[in-house]
Amino acid sequence: MTHEAGIPLGIRFKLLSDTPQDSAAQVVGDVVVGDYRDLDTLREFARGCDVITFDHEHVPTEHLRALEADGIPVRPGPDALVHAQDKGVMRAKLTEIGAPCPRHRIVSDPADVERFAAEGEGFPVILKTVRGGYDGKGVWFVRSAKDAEEPFRAGVPVLAEEKVDFTRELAANIVRSPHGQAVAYPVVESIQVDGVCDTVIAPAPGLSEELSAQAQNLALRIAKELDVVGHLAVELFEAVDSEGNHRILVNELAMRPHNSGHWTQDGAITSQFANHVRAVLDLPLGDPRPRAEWTVMANVLGGDYPDMYSAYLHCMARDPQLKIHMYGKDVKPGRKVGHVNTYGDDLADVRERAAHAAGYLRGTITE
Amino acid sequence: MTHEAGIPLGIRFKLLSDTPQDSAAQVVGDVVVGDYRDLDTLREFARGCDVITFDHEHVPTEHLRALEADGIPVRPGPDALVHAQDKGVMRAKLTEIGAPCPRHRIVSDPADVERFAAEGEGFPVILKTVRGGYDGKGVWFVRSAKDAEEPFRAGVPVLAEEKVDFTRELAANIVRSPHGQAVAYPVVESIQVDGVCDTVIAPAPGLSEELSAQAQNLALRIAKELDVVGHLAVELFEAVDSEGNHRILVNELAMRPHNSGHWTQDGAITSQFANHVRAVLDLPLGDPRPRAEWTVMANVLGGDYPDMYSAYLHCMARDPQLKIHMYGKDVKPGRKVGHVNTYGDDLADVRERAAHAAGYLRGTITE
Repeated sequence: MTHEAGIPLGIRFKLLSDTPQDSAAQVVGDVVVGDYRDLDTLREFARGCDVITFDHEHVPTEHLRALEADGIPVRPGPDALVHAQDKGVMRAKLTEIGAPCPRHRIVSDPADVERFAAEGEGFPVILKTVRGGYDGKGVWFVRSAKDAEEPFRAGVPVLAEEKVDFTRELAANIVRSPHGQAVAYPVVESIQVDGVCDTVIAPAPGLSEELSAQAQNLALRIAKELDVVGHLAVELFEAVDSEGNHRILVNELAMRPHNSGHWTQDGAITSQFANHVRAVLDLPLGDPRPRAEWTVMANVLGGDYPDMYSAYLHCMARDPQLKIHMYGKDVKPGRKVGHVNTYGDDLADVRERAAHAAGYLRGTITE
Repeated sequence: MTHEAGIPLGIRFKLLSDTPQDSAAQVVGDVVVGDYRDLDTLREFARGCDVITFDHEHVPTEHLRALEADGIPVRPGPDALVHAQDKGVMRAKLTEIGAPCPRHRIVSDPADVERFAAEGEGFPVILKTVRGGYDGKGVWFVRSAKDAEEPFRAGVPVLAEEKVDFTRELAANIVRSPHGQAVAYPVVESIQVDGVCDTVIAPAPGLSEELSAQAQNLALRIAKELDVVGHLAVELFEAVDSEGNHRILVNELAMRPHNSGHWTQDGAITSQFANHVRAVLDLPLGDPRPRAEWTVMANVLGGDYPDMYSAYLHCMARDPQLKIHMYGKDVKPGRKVGHVNTYGDDLADVRERAAHAAGYLRGTITE
């Protein structure tokens, strides 16, 4: 999708891909297949690149520092990216700069989890491995010290967080360039099902102007303090206290084009992908404003049938305005294989169309 | 641009390219470099393709028939495409189906051109080689029989046409699928400078609903009668007779995504490229309606400076809403190297922004 956005800008990519079957490797011309965890592979790949960027956060921080030492610009840089790689580092930094976070600390064992719970409102508690989690993996919801054994088995530091009693999840997405220009997209509502993003609504319905500005300013401030370059997604909890006051807390950070920004491909003047590329190359950023009153993104998950072709035809025929984005992945149950975007003036209609298409493609809706 | 539109649909291209430097070859993964005029090259290339389509009309008609005989679907098919390849065949067919054309006939020599002129309003007369013309090449504006010698030198049949006293040029763009579904884009105004398309305004300002419907219906009828599959651009003259009645005449046909449809990338719900791909694969077509009141496309021609980078930065910084489409071509004076799209509610502003960006990139505007 980043390549797609780079084509009209005249920007040519060289891709380091795990396998020749990866989504990006199917559409980019210049593909090197190799392991991003291997420094020699990275160094060989990076030779001749003007700048390096990512579509995931898993390249080891020390390898990125080595590339920088070789004189290759890495954007976002390792000192920024580590905050999206390591949840412990992220929480420490956000706390330092005064960004609102759930109560948290690194815990050493199940007994320590029990102490953490006792320091606050008690169980349940959320445990997360500080590195490697994704789409609900590496995250545990624990109700007792006995529940808390598994997270420690991987030998990775474990972060405990209070279970926030949130009303919904939001995301504040911004893009920042090396010389400090930044644009903020409208704050969106993100609806998760089984720990995986299901639907994104742009803008977040009913969000007060005040909270919206607060969320955008928070994301811009985090980007500046952490020196982020490119797209930053700040995943937020919206919570309501006993007096009815709304507030936001930071859940996660992602430093790359993010699922909560996929709506921008069809719903914003400039997509997150185009603006990420523009930022990474220190080009002037594009207008982030929405083009429609409402845009809804729904993820397409694999269902029980590996062949989606007839569903794909049905969805296009049923809704000629539907914007389909398929990733060229083999269909496996629950795997994200694409997304759809819909837009318009009537939120109920826009949501129904997105949900219908995503459900039909998955096979959970059959009419 | 067709590859770009195919990515979200999950459609993967194999490209036959003249050189590895061609615009499309820079961005498509699977590229074969070869000569489209060589049948063996075409046959070898076509093996394993589900369908073949084009971004120009120059593949020899007989080669396309050979591929069809091999069982490879060619869309548009040779029997349709010949009308966009050969202006003589096109005029004969359009006349047969009653489509309004300028007065015309094949002429044999300069004396015959003089007779053609005398049969109508006299000189000037337009002469065109029936094959191989493009962007004003292969077209002559002649004022006398003496002027008319050059067109005959190539040994290609020459078509004479009356010089139409048109008020402006329009284009009616439609897309048609193999099973006959068709969509019509709004009729646009196309402004030529020195025989090359400079600006396209969508929709054509001040065009009556009646003439607009007449142009769309004409394009749909031509597509049906000629069995066109994919995008068809019908370039039209709008003329006003002595009683003030407006009418349209067919100038040219193009059977592929066309410059007069580039505005759809940012201005329509479904772009001409996406709908061409959908048609060629017999997928349901997407909604062709505009997303903004006005969209303007301006071609970027090469200027005197081969390095456009600082102009590119300036344009992005000046107008964050500007949509730039660069083709990755080396800059040569007068060569089409990209285009820009702008959209909005205020036509004067939208035109100014497009013209400024295109002029600045070319180097003819310097503030």
